[in-house]
Amino acid sequence: MDDDAVTAFVPGHVTGFFSSHPDDDPSKAGSRGAGVTLTDGVTVRATPAARARTTLDGTEIVVEPVDRVLDALSISVHVEATTDLPLGAGFGTSGALALGTAFAANQLFDRRLSANELVTIAHAAEVRSGTGLGDVVAQARGGVPIRLDPGGPAHNRLDAIPASTRIEYLTFGDLSTESVLSGDTDRLTDAGLESLSILAEEPTLSTFMYASRRFAREADLLTDRVRGAIEDVSAAGGEASMAMLGETVFALGTGLSEAGYDPSVCRTHAAGATVLEGAAPPPSASGPPRANNAGDL
Amino acid sequence: MDDDAVTAFVPGHVTGFFSSHPDDDPSKAGSRGAGVTLTDGVTVRATPAARARTTLDGTEIVVEPVDRVLDALSISVHVEATTDLPLGAGFGTSGALALGTAFAANQLFDRRLSANELVTIAHAAEVRSGTGLGDVVAQARGGVPIRLDPGGPAHNRLDAIPASTRIEYLTFGDLSTESVLSGDTDRLTDAGLESLSILAEEPTLSTFMYASRRFAREADLLTDRVRGAIEDVSAAGGEASMAMLGETVFALGTGLSEAGYDPSVCRTHAAGATVLEGAAPPPSASGPPRANNAGDL
Repeated sequence: MDDDAVTAFVPGHVTGFFSSHPDDDPSKAGSRGAGVTLTDGVTVRATPAARARTTLDGTEIVVEPVDRVLDALSISVHVEATTDLPLGAGFGTSGALALGTAFAANQLFDRRLSANELVTIAHAAEVRSGTGLGDVVAQARGGVPIRLDPGGPAHNRLDAIPASTRIEYLTFGDLSTESVLSGDTDRLTDAGLESLSILAEEPTLSTFMYASRRFAREADLLTDRVRGAIEDVSAAGGEASMAMLGETVFALGTGLSEAGYDPSVCRTHAAGATVLEGAAPPPSASGPPRANNAGDL
Repeated sequence: MDDDAVTAFVPGHVTGFFSSHPDDDPSKAGSRGAGVTLTDGVTVRATPAARARTTLDGTEIVVEPVDRVLDALSISVHVEATTDLPLGAGFGTSGALALGTAFAANQLFDRRLSANELVTIAHAAEVRSGTGLGDVVAQARGGVPIRLDPGGPAHNRLDAIPASTRIEYLTFGDLSTESVLSGDTDRLTDAGLESLSILAEEPTLSTFMYASRRFAREADLLTDRVRGAIEDVSAAGGEASMAMLGETVFALGTGLSEAGYDPSVCRTHAAGATVLEGAAPPPSASGPPRANNAGDL
């Protein structure tokens, strides 16, 4: 065990549309759909602690997926997270906390798990907690991910829109992911699969936004404020839709600012979850993996 | 078609070990193995041109995989590439040129292909040209990729070592990938599969370096100069191995400099191939994807 801190960064993720695919096995359960990962994200710093605790921007909080990740790794860690993103507003902050904790704690305690194993643990923790279905998988990839299958890395296939762009967003309030996902999701899933089919035919940013607006309308998730802002952006010649699930509008490029709003501004994030520090312990600290390791030519 | 330039960046990729898996279908052919992607890479700028031509650092060159990518996309482009990496020395520059061309040209000509489709085209172009078997897939992912299966994105599975690190490298000369891959690869493939099995049990950077050294020795690819540098790094307490395929030594952290060498220095690159510019055409430039696109709430 290395007792230095290890820091990981996980991009935020705005889902544009999705379908829900429950399964008794949480590594198979999840969602299909598409979204954008964001340069605004969550930074997670892990340090060893006798008692596990999590702070977000300095305030102690309980994040069930984080506790589940630490249980799965059988370790006790102080998780200090910071973020510019609003909570509960459709940015995948719970997934980012779970995934960042998995990456940082794995290295801090030299658990020697692979990226796929850590993503699987964080994804299952989110699914079991009911806080998300696809954010973790998308946040592990980065870019503009298309989730072709539900579930973790052992079961899903991913594709992506090969583009990057400025993103603007504006949050009016939060929506409970748990309450939407625990309700009747048949209509939502039908709409999500239709949007996925549309995007698969033409994987561009513009078609992603169209398919997302179509989903928001068909799944009947729009609030009046969100609908109004999307219409304003369209009237100004831009492209916007609703973040799933939050009372949040996101737009390509300068869509919201050109419509007269004062949005937060970021970009799509090219990389997935990344360990930032403590990443390269000297060989003497991590120890030779095998007795015949040294100078073995 | 947008006649602005589009620029893409593709990280370099040093393969530590691999096994060769030929197939008549180039999207299934490829290698299994592992490597590190690098912040030193290839920047590709594509502009429309009546006659396709490719320059690297200002000098016109013929890169067969690039020509094959342009053929597959049925377009004619001026590819201007720049790189800090040495050529033919095990850094995946041909794969980077092919993949960067695919990403940039797709956007330049609004071809609307997905990331997986572009990776498949570039991977097949490399395989058909005999210039590489696994670089493109790794360069599309970024990080420290483990290629569990051969082939393009429709066929392979990837994992990764969840870490980042400083990398040092030193090139003594080039080796011909084509001549090694066209020879008897049975011994090489046996050694590569054994190294993959070792890494899968313990996916850490240190074990990756051990498995890579083991491969270089078993596959009998070490030159005297490479062997000497690796031994010097080991004697100084560091971890180094040989880039496949080039007369190049790479080391974790400060391995080569602490052994008295004057290496190039970079880091692992968190993201895969990325479009850098021209990524967000205004909606009016790309056009509505469908007649019912605008303000369709």
